[in-house]
Amino acid sequence: MPRAAVIPKPNSAVEIRQVPEPQLEPDSALFEVELSEVCGTDVYLQQGRLQGVPYPLVPGHVSIGHLSKIRGSIRDVDGRELREGDRVTFLDVHRTCNACWYCLVAKATTRCPHRKVYGITYGLDDGLCGGWAEQIYLKPGTRCILCVSDAETFMAGGCALPTALHAVERGGISIADTVLVLGSGPVGISSIILALMRGALRVFCIGAPDLRLDVASEVGAAGVLNFEKHDERGRLEWLLERTGGRGADVTIEATGAPDAVVQAMRFTRDAGRVVVVGQYTDHGPVSSRAAFNPHLDLNKKQLDVRGCWGSDFSHFYRAVQIVSDPNRSKPWAALQSKLSHYKLAQANEALADVAAGRVLKALIHPR
Amino acid sequence: MPRAAVIPKPNSAVEIRQVPEPQLEPDSALFEVELSEVCGTDVYLQQGRLQGVPYPLVPGHVSIGHLSKIRGSIRDVDGRELREGDRVTFLDVHRTCNACWYCLVAKATTRCPHRKVYGITYGLDDGLCGGWAEQIYLKPGTRCILCVSDAETFMAGGCALPTALHAVERGGISIADTVLVLGSGPVGISSIILALMRGALRVFCIGAPDLRLDVASEVGAAGVLNFEKHDERGRLEWLLERTGGRGADVTIEATGAPDAVVQAMRFTRDAGRVVVVGQYTDHGPVSSRAAFNPHLDLNKKQLDVRGCWGSDFSHFYRAVQIVSDPNRSKPWAALQSKLSHYKLAQANEALADVAAGRVLKALIHPR
Amino acid sequence: MPRAAVIPKPNSAVEIRQVPEPQLEPDSALFEVELSEVCGTDVYLQQGRLQGVPYPLVPGHVSIGHLSKIRGSIRDVDGRELREGDRVTFLDVHRTCNACWYCLVAKATTRCPHRKVYGITYGLDDGLCGGWAEQIYLKPGTRCILCVSDAETFMAGGCALPTALHAVERGGISIADTVLVLGSGPVGISSIILALMRGALRVFCIGAPDLRLDVASEVGAAGVLNFEKHDERGRLEWLLERTGGRGADVTIEATGAPDAVVQAMRFTRDAGRVVVVGQYTDHGPVSSRAAFNPHLDLNKKQLDVRGCWGSDFSHFYRAVQIVSDPNRSKPWAALQSKLSHYKLAQANEALADVAAGRVLKALIHPR
Amino acid sequence: MPRAAVIPKPNSAVEIRQVPEPQLEPDSALFEVELSEVCGTDVYLQQGRLQGVPYPLVPGHVSIGHLSKIRGSIRDVDGRELREGDRVTFLDVHRTCNACWYCLVAKATTRCPHRKVYGITYGLDDGLCGGWAEQIYLKPGTRCILCVSDAETFMAGGCALPTALHAVERGGISIADTVLVLGSGPVGISSIILALMRGALRVFCIGAPDLRLDVASEVGAAGVLNFEKHDERGRLEWLLERTGGRGADVTIEATGAPDAVVQAMRFTRDAGRVVVVGQYTDHGPVSSRAAFNPHLDLNKKQLDVRGCWGSDFSHFYRAVQIVSDPNRSKPWAALQSKLSHYKLAQANEALADVAAGRVLKALIHPR
Repeated sequence: MPRAAVIPKPNSAVEIRQVPEPQLEPDSALFEVELSEVCGTDVYLQQGRLQGVPYPLVPGHVSIGHLSKIRGSIRDVDGRELREGDRVTFLDVHRTCNACWYCLVAKATTRCPHRKVYGITYGLDDGLCGGWAEQIYLKPGTRCILCVSDAETFMAGGCALPTALHAVERGGISIADTVLVLGSGPVGISSIILALMRGALRVFCIGAPDLRLDVASEVGAAGVLNFEKHDERGRLEWLLERTGGRGADVTIEATGAPDAVVQAMRFTRDAGRVVVVGQYTDHGPVSSRAAFNPHLDLNKKQLDVRGCWGSDFSHFYRAVQIVSDPNRSKPWAALQSKLSHYKLAQANEALADVAAGRVLKALIHPR
Repeated sequence: MPRAAVIPKPNSAVEIRQVPEPQLEPDSALFEVELSEVCGTDVYLQQGRLQGVPYPLVPGHVSIGHLSKIRGSIRDVDGRELREGDRVTFLDVHRTCNACWYCLVAKATTRCPHRKVYGITYGLDDGLCGGWAEQIYLKPGTRCILCVSDAETFMAGGCALPTALHAVERGGISIADTVLVLGSGPVGISSIILALMRGALRVFCIGAPDLRLDVASEVGAAGVLNFEKHDERGRLEWLLERTGGRGADVTIEATGAPDAVVQAMRFTRDAGRVVVVGQYTDHGPVSSRAAFNPHLDLNKKQLDVRGCWGSDFSHFYRAVQIVSDPNRSKPWAALQSKLSHYKLAQANEALADVAAGRVLKALIHPR
Repeated sequence: MPRAAVIPKPNSAVEIRQVPEPQLEPDSALFEVELSEVCGTDVYLQQGRLQGVPYPLVPGHVSIGHLSKIRGSIRDVDGRELREGDRVTFLDVHRTCNACWYCLVAKATTRCPHRKVYGITYGLDDGLCGGWAEQIYLKPGTRCILCVSDAETFMAGGCALPTALHAVERGGISIADTVLVLGSGPVGISSIILALMRGALRVFCIGAPDLRLDVASEVGAAGVLNFEKHDERGRLEWLLERTGGRGADVTIEATGAPDAVVQAMRFTRDAGRVVVVGQYTDHGPVSSRAAFNPHLDLNKKQLDVRGCWGSDFSHFYRAVQIVSDPNRSKPWAALQSKLSHYKLAQANEALADVAAGRVLKALIHPR
Repeated sequence: MPRAAVIPKPNSAVEIRQVPEPQLEPDSALFEVELSEVCGTDVYLQQGRLQGVPYPLVPGHVSIGHLSKIRGSIRDVDGRELREGDRVTFLDVHRTCNACWYCLVAKATTRCPHRKVYGITYGLDDGLCGGWAEQIYLKPGTRCILCVSDAETFMAGGCALPTALHAVERGGISIADTVLVLGSGPVGISSIILALMRGALRVFCIGAPDLRLDVASEVGAAGVLNFEKHDERGRLEWLLERTGGRGADVTIEATGAPDAVVQAMRFTRDAGRVVVVGQYTDHGPVSSRAAFNPHLDLNKKQLDVRGCWGSDFSHFYRAVQIVSDPNRSKPWAALQSKLSHYKLAQANEALADVAAGRVLKALIHPR
């Protein structure tokens, strides 16, 4: 019986349980987990801050491993039949229905109401559906991709990479643009790398703590600022000095703080673009201190402000292509030494370290 | 000496003055005003609520009339040389420089810092540059368009028409979309007409007072709601009932009220678009009552929120094409009976009526 | 046993056969055909000019009727469960897989290699899958839409309406643009209507014969020209006279003649758009007489030339919304008197009339 | 009196002449040429293959040097006043009018009919307006940019860099896309570099001769093929093997050969994009051997084919930003050793070497 780390209910510590080995439906598979990750969302899951989440649940939405057992047939997007033993990863989003108004008319598949996410909206009652476990049950229709990448390089991107890729795509960066990234967590770091990959001339980062800003600089940020040491006015002046007084062409907000969304508008030049990708958890409304002024902050500036929710298969697929390429994957490969490693039994410690911002990225090794 | 209605300084009543007939520079002209308009911005000008405005000034940014005197040569975009006697209108925006970073690199000409606007940012010291006068001095480089339209039909659109056209263009409406227009002033009314012209299946309008909502219905709105009679929850329910529970595909905010920007996001379906075009004057920040929540209102919805500032020549040109066409101009022609007419000497009365929302649109007849 | 009109093999006359009533799989249905259509593709099917088509086959890809028998559950995109007796139509394209590279990475579902089309690439061996029959077997996953439209109004649009909608969408028409439609068959006629619905100021049509050009004028074309009476130079002069010497902003090629694609480029103004939607059947290469010159016809003009294949569910859905709306459907409703009606037994006559261009649109009444 | 290399008339050898030093109009300047370039267009100029070119003329459209004399004021897009002694380059396109229909309504400034190009459509009668001279007369309104780049690195990009940047921008490359570049001349080489800068995972190049293909590999092409050694079928097989049988996501045609435009369509995957940027000179129509089939090559593939003419200031500005950046400019800096250098008196030799494809890029050193 495989072991799994389970959040039994909101605000409870993770427990290690042994769960029955899944019975395979036709066209499903067993996936042996090599590595899974701990992301900020997992902290909120443990704190019970996400709505509509079924407890008990096994966290871990992005994982890498291999297929140990296949019943029926599983194919990748190129139509290749996958085999037992294949090294793969899979899109955490499952059951995007291709039958509803959002999928078929709006073509906004990230807003399909039937979407389920492994490790987040699939609970233990749905099967062994999270990565903090020795095995994951891959239900029929799970989108698998063969993955030749080094496991730790892949996990250095983790779930942040496709999310950042979606954000960067939404940002409409042009060659030689100046980009500002707010936030220096995993999504921020991958956004810096990808904005440069997209042709930005310079990428600035405002975040914290210094440990993470050092990483931002290492992956190529042209300048970093610790927001804890400067008030909003100071941050704005810092940025304007570096952008000819205009602000960034594109700002990617990846912070989690509601007020940062308003500041992102102010940091962006007129007729620029702001991508809001950091508001995955409900932290309540913008404060009155933020003083969001639609005339000055939005209308007169002729800004585009673009919400960006999750990612779809195309982002995940492109992320895997990148991270599997010896050259393109280098920035993430260089992050390997910054990763923190935990066994299944250390899941609570991993959560605590991520919650405190003590680590750049925590990985779970279930075996 | 031509007569002009002048706002001498903020919060002062309009005065009628006689001003010297302009001396023409090369490639400039005298324009005899047939009709000019009173728009909401003129009310704010009189109240001193716009920044960077030079007093004394002659209001009136969109006007129709004819060229009475030309020095040198004035050509339209087709290269035709205009002649004395030609019936024309002209773009109120002047001196978009085609030489700065915003014009040439960002291609965001509405944000060119050298732009000047007849009747708003040109004061009396710059010459006779507003439409509430018998004559306007058309400086070199003013963009004129021959206009065969009926004068009152043209003015029924007025400055609101190109503004609404810009907003509708930014909205990215698809054929058979559902559009919500917030606000039933001139920009709102033209937005309804243009959203239908763009292929929207149904356009709803939330505004006030009933007088204007009747106009909204007459120009084709499929449903109207008086926002003064329903709280935000009531308005949202009303809209969701009419949109399969999803909200509008595209919402055009044309109200002037800061909180309406937040509500516009809530009225729009996931992955839809919100165009913010109603925040021309600084009415301060969004209230804490609005409770703008970036997670719920923007990120998770994957919304596009698009500021829309003024209009450029293309919008004005297209607006004139439409209003000069016997068929396309019908909705504005039908508004003629709703227009209110004032002589130059009645300018204060006109401002008061517009400020109070007593009239749909006020026109100044300087002769 | 339901009767069906069958093309037994290429270049053979249609035969009426009695076929066994389908056995329903779970979540499938029987559809009683009220009306089906005869389109140009059906002529080519009978002539054996399409590749990869399985004979014998029952033609008829777009039909309207009602569900007489449902096994399991069939839902529309809004999640409503359909019931026996419901009046519906359905997207002829079936089995767009949502699992391949084209569906998931390129997001080009019209190029999904697993697509099947009722009445074209489903043959009789696949079941009763064409509309020239008393019944159609709706396989699981068929996309149905409730349809309140008058049957003949719906069929006046027929398969041409979503195709034209896709083309018009690809054309990127702006308000007040001038559009040229090449071809006056069903796709051309619907393109005229939809280009106007999209805000075009004027739509011109070059086609033949005069019978169809009369229809083009009736639905709103500002000018029509019979291409059989003017050579290419004459047509170009005619158009340039009407477009200030520039050509059309957007040209929609809906002819079927390879050389028309090259002419479409010449009829379009610099930096305009050409949508190629009329080349559904392989008529071989462009002739040397067409003299396609990439320097003059494409590069120097900075044209966008956009191929447009079939349509996806969104186009079909929007088409049904339009044709179900009392106001928006008027242009198609007005075509009812131009429709030609045939019984199942008259299918060969219908094909001959369509092939000869003697009718605007032929409809099959299987009952 | 400055010396200049002059093409006296079509098909005549270049002559060195001494021309009077220009008299400066207000807001104009003298530019001392450090380096100018010889591009393929110059070969065609000498052969008299461009229409509307005024002879005698001084070739050389992109140059780098410094301002030796300013009359009045010259500012860059940031509003900085330039001074005598400043190291600058300037956009070869002059007099984009900002007043015509193409500039103001279509926003297609590369198609403004008033554009003039230094070294191409300005002849000697217009003043000293080409770069193969000791001095250039910068007319009022010429768009100058301060340039800190190494002169040879800048010229390694030369006029090809903004042209390629425009093409790559038109191509809509996504992160991890596969790009095919047809042609290995200067535009092809810069397109490879820029496609990679834009996030392409792999860029392939089909061109000739091997000398240039070696350069393509050195700047990062993942694979190169000499088109002279493989027929069209062989080239297609080569590409399909490397693209999972689908073809390139984006193809940039930069060859000059009309038939390559048709092949570009075939080398591109369904629903991909083809940018046609290599057809700057009229080489006549596509051959019948090319067998352009609109059904197979365009409509059924749902391709986007995009003509791309010249470049505008934004492309030139971004190009200068890139080439002035120590990191981004590396690929061009690495080409320095491949540049061939000529004195003014060797201009005929330079033209001959370029015409024969013996050199990658020829530079003129007028001093």
